[in-house]
Amino acid sequence: METYSRHIISELSGCNSDYLEDTDKIREIIINAAISANAEVREVAVHKFSPQGVSGVVVIAESHLSIHTWPEVGYAAIDIFTCGTTTKPQEACKYLAEQLEADEIYQTEIKRGIPGQNGRFFHQKANESRSVGGVSQPR
Amino acid sequence: METYSRHIISELSGCNSDYLEDTDKIREIIINAAISANAEVREVAVHKFSPQGVSGVVVIAESHLSIHTWPEVGYAAIDIFTCGTTTKPQEACKYLAEQLEADEIYQTEIKRGIPGQNGRFFHQKANESRSVGGVSQPR
Repeated sequence: METYSRHIISELSGCNSDYLEDTDKIREIIINAAISANAEVREVAVHKFSPQGVSGVVVIAESHLSIHTWPEVGYAAIDIFTCGTTTKPQEACKYLAEQLEADEIYQTEIKRGIPGQNGRFFHQKANESRSVGGVSQPR
Repeated sequence: METYSRHIISELSGCNSDYLEDTDKIREIIINAAISANAEVREVAVHKFSPQGVSGVVVIAESHLSIHTWPEVGYAAIDIFTCGTTTKPQEACKYLAEQLEADEIYQTEIKRGIPGQNGRFFHQKANESRSVGGVSQPR
């Protein structure tokens, strides 16, 4: 199995707070986000916190997708870790941002599991972006 | 609930391959790693892949800890995302590296959920390290 993986880290701002508080909605969209990335869903865990917030994680093949929400400020922290070359993590991020009605996406992509010397592995930033209403902005 | 979170990304190399293939071992150590970080475990999902490899995720309060393993090359990709100031994600990483007998840890810490202008959130690299046999090395 190839070790090379892509890890997308995103902060979604200006989201619909009702959605960020809705456990069923979060479960539905994280599963569909994984599918939109061309990934196979193996396990799903969603938890509602008191007084607010939802955490959700989908385990996909050698990979995962996670969300943690702060409805009180319209913010969600997203991680999408995918292995190999057939999955499309950017599609999953785009899908989540659309479904949550985010108006800003602050994102960094990191290459994980890069083979180095002597059987050691490292990671490296691949690219970074910030977009508001779908339009690219300086960071 | 405070949005500020710490996210530790680690590549563990030179791990004990038998452990990386052992679903029960992985389940046990990710739960104990979360506890060592002073976090409360809410959900656990572990999945074994064919022909090799295990993925495990622990959902903790507004946070998560994940592992993906490649036993054939002694490699594990670790993510520890913790919210607030009472958890100690570095402890969890250290614990996992010890339990898996990793001889190299390649690590980056990212500050997540940093409040910016106009109610927007961003992230920022906090520090990076590489250690071999517990001794700090240049990256």
